[in-house]
Amino acid sequence: MANRKLRMGMVGGGQGAFIGAVHRIAARMDGLIDLVCGAFSSDPAKSKATGESLFLSAERVYGSFEEMMEREAALPADQRMDFVSIVTPNHLHFAPAKLALEKGFHVVLDKPMTFSLQEALELEKAVRQSGLLLCLTHTYTGYPMVKEARQVVLSGRLGRIRKVYVEYPQGWLSEHIEGGENKQANWRTDPGKSGMAGCMGDIGTHAFNLAEYVTGLKVTRLCAQINTVVHGRKLDDDGAVLLEFENGATGVLMASQIAAGEENCLKIRVYGEKGGLEWKQDEANSLWLKWLHEPAQLLRTGGPGLSSYAQHNTRVPAGHPEGYLEAFANLYRNFALTLQARLQGTEPRPEWLDFPGVEEGVRGMRFIERVIESGKTDKKWVEL
Amino acid sequence: MANRKLRMGMVGGGQGAFIGAVHRIAARMDGLIDLVCGAFSSDPAKSKATGESLFLSAERVYGSFEEMMEREAALPADQRMDFVSIVTPNHLHFAPAKLALEKGFHVVLDKPMTFSLQEALELEKAVRQSGLLLCLTHTYTGYPMVKEARQVVLSGRLGRIRKVYVEYPQGWLSEHIEGGENKQANWRTDPGKSGMAGCMGDIGTHAFNLAEYVTGLKVTRLCAQINTVVHGRKLDDDGAVLLEFENGATGVLMASQIAAGEENCLKIRVYGEKGGLEWKQDEANSLWLKWLHEPAQLLRTGGPGLSSYAQHNTRVPAGHPEGYLEAFANLYRNFALTLQARLQGTEPRPEWLDFPGVEEGVRGMRFIERVIESGKTDKKWVEL
Amino acid sequence: MANRKLRMGMVGGGQGAFIGAVHRIAARMDGLIDLVCGAFSSDPAKSKATGESLFLSAERVYGSFEEMMEREAALPADQRMDFVSIVTPNHLHFAPAKLALEKGFHVVLDKPMTFSLQEALELEKAVRQSGLLLCLTHTYTGYPMVKEARQVVLSGRLGRIRKVYVEYPQGWLSEHIEGGENKQANWRTDPGKSGMAGCMGDIGTHAFNLAEYVTGLKVTRLCAQINTVVHGRKLDDDGAVLLEFENGATGVLMASQIAAGEENCLKIRVYGEKGGLEWKQDEANSLWLKWLHEPAQLLRTGGPGLSSYAQHNTRVPAGHPEGYLEAFANLYRNFALTLQARLQGTEPRPEWLDFPGVEEGVRGMRFIERVIESGKTDKKWVEL
Amino acid sequence: MANRKLRMGMVGGGQGAFIGAVHRIAARMDGLIDLVCGAFSSDPAKSKATGESLFLSAERVYGSFEEMMEREAALPADQRMDFVSIVTPNHLHFAPAKLALEKGFHVVLDKPMTFSLQEALELEKAVRQSGLLLCLTHTYTGYPMVKEARQVVLSGRLGRIRKVYVEYPQGWLSEHIEGGENKQANWRTDPGKSGMAGCMGDIGTHAFNLAEYVTGLKVTRLCAQINTVVHGRKLDDDGAVLLEFENGATGVLMASQIAAGEENCLKIRVYGEKGGLEWKQDEANSLWLKWLHEPAQLLRTGGPGLSSYAQHNTRVPAGHPEGYLEAFANLYRNFALTLQARLQGTEPRPEWLDFPGVEEGVRGMRFIERVIESGKTDKKWVEL
Repeated sequence: MANRKLRMGMVGGGQGAFIGAVHRIAARMDGLIDLVCGAFSSDPAKSKATGESLFLSAERVYGSFEEMMEREAALPADQRMDFVSIVTPNHLHFAPAKLALEKGFHVVLDKPMTFSLQEALELEKAVRQSGLLLCLTHTYTGYPMVKEARQVVLSGRLGRIRKVYVEYPQGWLSEHIEGGENKQANWRTDPGKSGMAGCMGDIGTHAFNLAEYVTGLKVTRLCAQINTVVHGRKLDDDGAVLLEFENGATGVLMASQIAAGEENCLKIRVYGEKGGLEWKQDEANSLWLKWLHEPAQLLRTGGPGLSSYAQHNTRVPAGHPEGYLEAFANLYRNFALTLQARLQGTEPRPEWLDFPGVEEGVRGMRFIERVIESGKTDKKWVEL
Repeated sequence: MANRKLRMGMVGGGQGAFIGAVHRIAARMDGLIDLVCGAFSSDPAKSKATGESLFLSAERVYGSFEEMMEREAALPADQRMDFVSIVTPNHLHFAPAKLALEKGFHVVLDKPMTFSLQEALELEKAVRQSGLLLCLTHTYTGYPMVKEARQVVLSGRLGRIRKVYVEYPQGWLSEHIEGGENKQANWRTDPGKSGMAGCMGDIGTHAFNLAEYVTGLKVTRLCAQINTVVHGRKLDDDGAVLLEFENGATGVLMASQIAAGEENCLKIRVYGEKGGLEWKQDEANSLWLKWLHEPAQLLRTGGPGLSSYAQHNTRVPAGHPEGYLEAFANLYRNFALTLQARLQGTEPRPEWLDFPGVEEGVRGMRFIERVIESGKTDKKWVEL
Repeated sequence: MANRKLRMGMVGGGQGAFIGAVHRIAARMDGLIDLVCGAFSSDPAKSKATGESLFLSAERVYGSFEEMMEREAALPADQRMDFVSIVTPNHLHFAPAKLALEKGFHVVLDKPMTFSLQEALELEKAVRQSGLLLCLTHTYTGYPMVKEARQVVLSGRLGRIRKVYVEYPQGWLSEHIEGGENKQANWRTDPGKSGMAGCMGDIGTHAFNLAEYVTGLKVTRLCAQINTVVHGRKLDDDGAVLLEFENGATGVLMASQIAAGEENCLKIRVYGEKGGLEWKQDEANSLWLKWLHEPAQLLRTGGPGLSSYAQHNTRVPAGHPEGYLEAFANLYRNFALTLQARLQGTEPRPEWLDFPGVEEGVRGMRFIERVIESGKTDKKWVEL
Repeated sequence: MANRKLRMGMVGGGQGAFIGAVHRIAARMDGLIDLVCGAFSSDPAKSKATGESLFLSAERVYGSFEEMMEREAALPADQRMDFVSIVTPNHLHFAPAKLALEKGFHVVLDKPMTFSLQEALELEKAVRQSGLLLCLTHTYTGYPMVKEARQVVLSGRLGRIRKVYVEYPQGWLSEHIEGGENKQANWRTDPGKSGMAGCMGDIGTHAFNLAEYVTGLKVTRLCAQINTVVHGRKLDDDGAVLLEFENGATGVLMASQIAAGEENCLKIRVYGEKGGLEWKQDEANSLWLKWLHEPAQLLRTGGPGLSSYAQHNTRVPAGHPEGYLEAFANLYRNFALTLQARLQGTEPRPEWLDFPGVEEGVRGMRFIERVIESGKTDKKWVEL
């Protein structure tokens, strides 16, 4: 480990923003990262107030991300931030990320990666050219049992994969609440801030990423039914997608924000020739393995029979539930451990490298473009 | 009630047949029906042996369904069977059912109703012309909590319905077991016996029926991905279908026989403007109501807050689980109560009339034809 | 199998009685038993009406159990009942059971076996002297997964048993409903009909029986806290008991009828040196095996990895839930198969013999006496 | 809020210690507390190494808690720690806590509070005399749904409480692992470090605390069966306790470390005249309310229908599970908010004051003494 904490700056996450606070908790959890500066809002007064509430020194709270990048880059190496965490709405992902890379800062970026696929491809290029790290916070891949699910599939224990069901039902947008006090609702349903997709961009991409992460397979084509259910809404709030994978497996992806009464029960089921697995966020510390000719087994966070990937991403003994914030913190921790290794010139462990990056970001944006296209066409299949 | 038990004959259900034994248990359960005769097999010796094991008198065990219909029709009215239960493979549904109606016998028929849509339409006509009763054993609609789900939707408590997810994952055909000792596997995968569909005909129709039953809505068009996953199999063993309903709601239907490790967890979720419901066979006595602005509620078989439909179809106090056989028996019981009322010239209660019939049978066959057609075409939507 | 159905008579079970109807369904389910006669009520008119509703011929419906025993015994061997099922309140168990044995009839008897331990010991003697069969309907031991639980323990896979938790929480007597329309409530809370115990006699004995059945171990001493929670009630409605078993294991038994909101979730957990098991009625088709150093396994009715005892007591494929009535029917079926074997002079299979009898009945009555005694004394331990 | 983070010192928690790391995560989570110093081990080299791994400056890492208290007290007010967190084994709780109070430092202390009841009473006196804050980390009362459970009971919605079941089954001490590499196992089973109780001190106190916290009722007497199951073990590893509460309610407490295969499924059920509630750690974000005459309801962390206590202790929207570390962090957060208010001379909100303190610590130690006494006596009841 480095003999110091890593220094983080933040773009976005002003008071009242949900995901910014989550990022800060996640970054703090393991004591590897200190928040040292931020441009928390495009409103300088609000940025300042947020910085104060976070006990930051006033001179490291900036009025814009451009100012932050500029001034942090000018600080001595032992003071300036090591990386920036960008937690703004989608339309404000690309510019700060690109600038950060140009200024030599590593990046943690909320998903979906950019506003458009075009931006994603440009950002991918910028990451590759810079040689810097980019961590995309597809939170759910941080759960120990999701990591285990991937390892089970990769190990071949299920045989060749044949079928994938992935779903993300929410109910919070069942009513037309945009235009009110819910900041999330306001920008998520605004094409100028979210991009071309609403539900599919927000949670469809999570489901898509989870399916590709767990199976290790790429989706090759899809057929989507995309709906805007609530009257007056400007973006999709519901959809279902038939999938084909590169190995011939098929799947179904369901995402909805109008499944009234549902919370956030992201769930994946994968079936191979010899057995299947099931994971869902509501019972995040359980991973079911179901066998064709043997009784089903229940793997548990911290329990027996787990891979090094699950173990590495676990903090407490079995039966003390780890949750969403720990999953999120695992992304930050793996990113930080990898970055520390790089700073120290050592080799990161494979488990540390297991966090989503720019490649997943491009996949996600490609999914968004194609799934929306599919929703509008009478052609059955759209290539991905 | 009639002052006697109803007399049932059976076509099919020889020794070793799974579903015949289930029908007999279901018919027996409530003491309203006596099995009095049968043509249990096309092999007369086997039919005879089955009759003996069921303690039937030898003269009422027949070598063919034609013989049975003929000879039963010739018996005095106080001896001959009242109705026939037909539990043969699909290709042998239509002929005995048609003949029974012609001979004046009411019919209980296993699903899917016929071998083809054409047969289904003919049978529908025959039922209407005869004025006789036909009960189609879509078992799952016999569960008290499924009946309650329908009543909740019809009551309007969920608001207008927007989204339906229905799924039926099984794993029993994950391997190429046809041609071996599993009789079910043999005929279910044989196009000459099952018809044009395998998985979609066997369990897809159950899921389809459940969706239309619970929502009270008709599917108007669909888009299907139909797969034959196991090498060498002659019919589909997996599929997923995007749905549209007559009120503009959308849905997803998933059915698979290669979901390795799954048993028979038929599950339905329905979401309206104000809330959603969830039922699954694994927890058949529970019905979740999930509300947008209130805590979720759990309705339970035999528990408080239920409609007369759930109550009528319940036999024991809450917490003593009722299962598949009771659900099946509810079909027979409602059919028998309706038939008794007719025989006595009284008015059946609405709860008694709530069993699936020829209309559901035609819907199911139409679904089969259209879903298979959709699976083969590049056109996105097929009308139903 | 015998070449005829067995002939059953019934004592008790008049219209409106809960458990009589359950016995009749259970007896009917497998087509091995015909109800041929009954003395359904001490009120002859009510007995007659019940008989009619069951389609019995009037001459086999009796005004008293004495009359029934007398007249059935006088019938020709090929007409008279083979056994009697006694489903009256506890104070009316002993006399008809004793008389039946004297007249040469086998007996199925509801639990607890008698009104007092003294009666139980006399009945045990009568059974032994008669050489006839007695089946005591401790329903819960009829569940396939309860049978499997016992086999798992007996196999030694859990190692030496160390700890047992068994519980039966109900809420139906949370209010003072006795004296109203609930017949069950009226006699269950009446010391003149139930005996010295209320809750402990009704459901405590079930829990006790389940613990001894699953572990194969006898309880040797106990320490009880027995409560009458509802004001004005004459018998206990709640209690908890510390247990010691013959091998040194310890346990806890909890039974309550004032656990408001609970249904009938009888549950048992057993822990040995190497692992534990868990079964509960709410998920009756699941049996958890939990291991010290391996992932937990879930055994399922009809699924892989089960003993012949579970398989024999299962009717449908895995995933089609079997419930309370099937468990109850398993008692009747095993009793009937054993009786048929005896009538035919063949050897019953070990699985058929696995139904509760007079020994379990005496254990249950001893438990009732001792647990009530313990509840009243300041001495910590009472021997069993 | 204070315009700075609070400064924490730590006693114990050297590398490899489980609970020290948990305390540090919990203290860090909300960005209100900085770890500034520590005496992490009685071995100065080990303490130093731990301090380095935590990026502490060397001069604030001490060789003993005495040194730490002395030197921190001598620091300027704007540098010295505000409070100390004591995470040593039980025999090393009292001395550092007492000294901290004498030096004017607030205290966070792991449970059980002390080695003996005598120490607990002395510490209680010291806290009262000092006027300083003491937070005892009974983690489980930090769960939002546990807080809600208490509010539901206090609101009277369940009516008068009648019955309490609380249980804490673990399996990790099923084998004689003490003397090996498991530090936890070594000191937990050592009477010189744990005190007079093993299982009852470690987890029995948690269960006891939870019962008194949720019900708001004091236990008045108990009857215990205390076992040392594993051969050669020096302290109890299993036990069960009958309880009586001050209002006449009764209860059962079960705690075991030899329940092979169990993790940490602490569970509580409380029943009143009108309904019951159920919470368990395995589904920590769910709280069941079960009603006598209405369908059961499921309250969920972050969901509708919750009190201000649950809301205050929640960080993310419903359906993103919060776990053990968040519950633990809630103790630290409430302690920190209360301490900040005191430092600023403002009134803490009632929700902030809801953390366990010295009173709960004394109750816990009294429970330990009495439950062990009860386990040894033939007298049925021991007063608490």
